[in-house]
Amino acid sequence: MILSQAGDQALLVDRDGKQFILKLDPTKELQTHRGVLRHQDLIGIPWGSSVTSHTGVKYLLFQPTLRDLLLHIKRSSQIIFPKDLGYILLRLSVRPGARVLEAGTGSGALTCALAWSVGPEGHVYSYDRRADMQDLARRNLERIGLLDRVTLRLADISEGIEETDIPSLFLDLPHPEDYLKQAHAALRNGGVLGAILPTSNQVSRFLGALPAHHFGHPEVCELLLRFYKPVAERLRPADRMVAHTGYLIFASSVSPQEPISDAG
Amino acid sequence: MILSQAGDQALLVDRDGKQFILKLDPTKELQTHRGVLRHQDLIGIPWGSSVTSHTGVKYLLFQPTLRDLLLHIKRSSQIIFPKDLGYILLRLSVRPGARVLEAGTGSGALTCALAWSVGPEGHVYSYDRRADMQDLARRNLERIGLLDRVTLRLADISEGIEETDIPSLFLDLPHPEDYLKQAHAALRNGGVLGAILPTSNQVSRFLGALPAHHFGHPEVCELLLRFYKPVAERLRPADRMVAHTGYLIFASSVSPQEPISDAG
Amino acid sequence: MILSQAGDQALLVDRDGKQFILKLDPTKELQTHRGVLRHQDLIGIPWGSSVTSHTGVKYLLFQPTLRDLLLHIKRSSQIIFPKDLGYILLRLSVRPGARVLEAGTGSGALTCALAWSVGPEGHVYSYDRRADMQDLARRNLERIGLLDRVTLRLADISEGIEETDIPSLFLDLPHPEDYLKQAHAALRNGGVLGAILPTSNQVSRFLGALPAHHFGHPEVCELLLRFYKPVAERLRPADRMVAHTGYLIFASSVSPQEPISDAG
Amino acid sequence: MILSQAGDQALLVDRDGKQFILKLDPTKELQTHRGVLRHQDLIGIPWGSSVTSHTGVKYLLFQPTLRDLLLHIKRSSQIIFPKDLGYILLRLSVRPGARVLEAGTGSGALTCALAWSVGPEGHVYSYDRRADMQDLARRNLERIGLLDRVTLRLADISEGIEETDIPSLFLDLPHPEDYLKQAHAALRNGGVLGAILPTSNQVSRFLGALPAHHFGHPEVCELLLRFYKPVAERLRPADRMVAHTGYLIFASSVSPQEPISDAG
Repeated sequence: MILSQAGDQALLVDRDGKQFILKLDPTKELQTHRGVLRHQDLIGIPWGSSVTSHTGVKYLLFQPTLRDLLLHIKRSSQIIFPKDLGYILLRLSVRPGARVLEAGTGSGALTCALAWSVGPEGHVYSYDRRADMQDLARRNLERIGLLDRVTLRLADISEGIEETDIPSLFLDLPHPEDYLKQAHAALRNGGVLGAILPTSNQVSRFLGALPAHHFGHPEVCELLLRFYKPVAERLRPADRMVAHTGYLIFASSVSPQEPISDAG
Repeated sequence: MILSQAGDQALLVDRDGKQFILKLDPTKELQTHRGVLRHQDLIGIPWGSSVTSHTGVKYLLFQPTLRDLLLHIKRSSQIIFPKDLGYILLRLSVRPGARVLEAGTGSGALTCALAWSVGPEGHVYSYDRRADMQDLARRNLERIGLLDRVTLRLADISEGIEETDIPSLFLDLPHPEDYLKQAHAALRNGGVLGAILPTSNQVSRFLGALPAHHFGHPEVCELLLRFYKPVAERLRPADRMVAHTGYLIFASSVSPQEPISDAG
Repeated sequence: MILSQAGDQALLVDRDGKQFILKLDPTKELQTHRGVLRHQDLIGIPWGSSVTSHTGVKYLLFQPTLRDLLLHIKRSSQIIFPKDLGYILLRLSVRPGARVLEAGTGSGALTCALAWSVGPEGHVYSYDRRADMQDLARRNLERIGLLDRVTLRLADISEGIEETDIPSLFLDLPHPEDYLKQAHAALRNGGVLGAILPTSNQVSRFLGALPAHHFGHPEVCELLLRFYKPVAERLRPADRMVAHTGYLIFASSVSPQEPISDAG
Repeated sequence: MILSQAGDQALLVDRDGKQFILKLDPTKELQTHRGVLRHQDLIGIPWGSSVTSHTGVKYLLFQPTLRDLLLHIKRSSQIIFPKDLGYILLRLSVRPGARVLEAGTGSGALTCALAWSVGPEGHVYSYDRRADMQDLARRNLERIGLLDRVTLRLADISEGIEETDIPSLFLDLPHPEDYLKQAHAALRNGGVLGAILPTSNQVSRFLGALPAHHFGHPEVCELLLRFYKPVAERLRPADRMVAHTGYLIFASSVSPQEPISDAG
C-alpha cells in the first residue's frame, strides 16, 4: 500500500471530472469552489483514497500521470499538448539514456516530457533566448523533479548550437527554417528533426527550406484527440474539442553531398 | 560520423516515401520492385547516405525511429498504432525504470513500445494464452533488441496475475471487463488501467463494469492522425486516412471501500 | 442593384466575424456591445453595403443565407446543425415539389430546411406532441416565410401517422425504434428513413430494430465541420470546434415479405 | 405501391452494401461478380423488393437518392463529394426557382446537385472551356433528367460572364482568384461566392485576393464524413475514410466603395 507523502505531486478529481494538481505541503490548504481541503489530510493516506472537503464534497486522490503533469504546468505561452507529445516522443525515438535537444524552451512542456523519457541516464539540452520563459520552465521542471536532467541554455540558436552528435532535435519556434543550418550541424548524421507550426503558410515555408539544408524524408501530420463522455449507457463524444494545436513536421538529416528532390 | 553496422536495424526510403525495414546482414539482398540492393553495400556507410539499387533507383538509409519499428513489426493480429501508443505511454506514465504489465501480448507492438520506454532498468510483464502469438512477439522483441526487458507469460489472466504492486497495466483483449478483479489485484493502489477496444458496445460494457471493481476517474478518447502530402507549394492532406483503430479507455484503481458513482 | 426592404431578414457582420440576424422593422433598433444601429438606416440600401453604429463601428449588411437562418433560429432544444442538414437533404432526396415528413418538430431547424428545399409546390408534415415546441417552430417558420408549406401536427406518432406514400421521413426523437411500424406505414415502398441520435447506445438499439420492421440498406455516419481562420498569411484551423452533434442513420423501406440479415 | 419502370434510374444493393446504379432498359443485363441480372426482371416490381441474380445472390432494388446519383456519375475529373455538396447548397442558399452559376462544369456533379435543387422553375448556368468535359456533364445531366434546367456554356470566364444579377456563384477552378472581377460583375450585390480548393497554398492565394475585388465576410472550412459499420452489436467506425477532398471557401460581394480589411 503506497501512501502519499509530503513533497509528492498529487491529483484530486471530483465526481464531475474536475481536476486539481498540487504539491503536498502540510502547511497549505487547497481552496476549491466546493470547499477547502487541508493538504495535511491528503498526506500519509493510500493513493486512490477518497477525501472530503469541509463542505462534504468528495474527491479521489491520485498520483498524477505524465499526461496530468503536462496539462497542468504553469504556462505563459502555448504549450505542446499531450496528444502531440506522445507522437513526438515516438517519432524522435527518445529513449532512456538518450541525449535530445530542443529550441525554444517555452513554458517547458516538451522539456518535461523529454526529461521524463530520457531518464536519469539521459540528458536534455533546451535553448531559449528569453530569460523569463526559461525561469518558468525551470520552475516547472523543478516541481516535477526533472531539472537535473536538463541543461537550460539562455541563447539564440541562430548563433549556433554548442552540442553535436545529437540523435534528435525539436524546434518549437515561429521560423524554424531560419535555423536549419545550425540544426544540421548539431544533429548526428541521419538524425531526426521535428517541428510544430500552427499555420499552413509556416509549414510550406519550412518544407521548402528543408532540401537545401540537407534534410530529407519529410513527414507532415496532425493529431486530433476526441474525448467521450465516459457514461456506459449514454456513450457519446464530448460536445466540443480542441480542433487545432499545430502541424507536426519531421525530417531526417542526410549527407550534404546528396541532392534531394522537393518531394523528399 | 556514425556508420551502419552488420546487425543494425535499417530503414530505406525512396523518393516517393516507400519504406523498407531490414536487419543488416552482409549475406543478404533486398528485393524491391525497383531493383536489388545488397546489404553489404548498406553496411559501413554513414546513416543519412543515399544508396542505389542495381537499376539506378536511389534510396536514403536511416536508423529507424521507434515509430518506424512499430509500424513494421511482423504481425498476425491487429497491432496498436503509433498514434495510440504515444498517448498510452503518457497516460500510463511509463518511465525509465518502471514496471508495467499488459495482456494480451498479441504481435507485440505495445510490448516493444513499453520495453523501449522502461529502459534497461525497467521491466515489462506480458501475458498471452496463445503460444503462437507469444512466439511472434518474442521474435519481434528480439529483432529490436528488447527481449531481455520483457517477461512473456503463457497464461490466461483469468487465472490470476502473478505480479503485484504494478503502477500501470494495459488490457488489449476483447472482453477486458472479465479481468477487472485480477487487474485490481495486480495494480498498486491508485495505479492506472488502460484498454483499447474497437466497438462502442465494448466500451459501454467495460465502462459499466469499472465502478463495481473499484476503478474510478474513467476517460474515453480516440486519436485521429492525418498525414499531409509534404510538398511546399501544394500542401494538402493525403486523400485517405485510417479512420479508426480503437477507443482508448483509462481508469484508476481506487480503494475498495470507496463507493463510486456511475459517472466516475 | 437590390435594396433591403422593411420586412426582410438581414445579416450584419462586423470585421471580427460577429453576426446578427434581424428582421428589418423601421421602428426598431439593434443594440450591440459596440453601439446601436437603427433599422431605418439599414432599409433601402444595397445589400453588401457597410453601415456604421453610433460609436463608429462598421458592419456589412447581407441577406442571410439558409445556413445563417438555420444557425440563428430561436431554440429551446438542441437543433440539427447545418453540417448535418445539408447531408440529410441529399440523403433524403428532398427536391422541389416533394412531400416529406418529420417527427419531432423541435425548434424547427430541419423543418425550415425541408420547407425551403421542397419549395412552394412541395409540402412538409411535421409532428410533435409538445405544444410549446410546435409554437416555437411555427414562429421560426413564419419569420423565414415558410409556414405555408408546412403542416404542423400536434400529435404523438406512436398513435399513427396520417400521411401515406411519403418518399422520405426523418425521426429526431430519443427512441426512434419505437416508431418504426408507423414510419414504415407512412413511407412509400422503397422510401428513405433518416434519424439523428447523440449516443452510440441509441444507434445500436435503432440499428438492431430495423430489420424486423422491414428497413434495409442501413448507413451510419457522422460529419465533422472544421473552420479555419480566414487569414491569407496565417491560415490555420480555429482553435476549437464542435466535436459532436449526433450520429446520422439512414435506411430504406423494403417489402415486408423480404427477410433481411442483420448486416442489412 | 410504386413500381419500377423502364427508363427509371435504379439502385441495386447487395447484403454487403455493394451498390450498382443503372437506368432500367428491358433490352439490357447487369453483369456483376456474383451473377447476372436481367433489367427486365427489375422492371414493373415494387421499389424495395429483392431480386436474385442467376447465381442466387440477392439484391434490394431502390430508387437512388440524390446522394447515390451524385456518387455514381461518370467522371473524368475529381468530383465534388456529397459531404461537401450538401453544405455548399445551404451556404449558397440554393432554392427552388433560383438562378445559380458555376465554373468549371467538370464532370457535372455540382451541376446536377444545383439543377436538382433549383427545380423546374430555376436555372443553372455552367461554364467550362473544355468541350470533352462539357459533353460528359451533359450526358450525366441527361441521364438524371436535369439537362433542361441547365445552360452549358463552352467558354472561358476570363473573357467574361454573360449573366448578371446572379444570387450565388461557385468556382471549381485551380486559380479562382483570376476570375474575381468577372465573378463580382456577374453576382447580385451582396451575393455569395463559393469555391473549393485542394491545397492550403491555393486557399491562401484566394483569400488574399478577395478584399481587392470587393468580397468580404470570408469563411474557410472543411468537412469530414466518417462512416460506421452499421452492425448493432459491433458498432464502430469504418477502418478507413476519405481524409480530404478540398477546402471550402465562401465570401460575399460587397459594394465597390467599401474598404475591406484583410481579416474581412
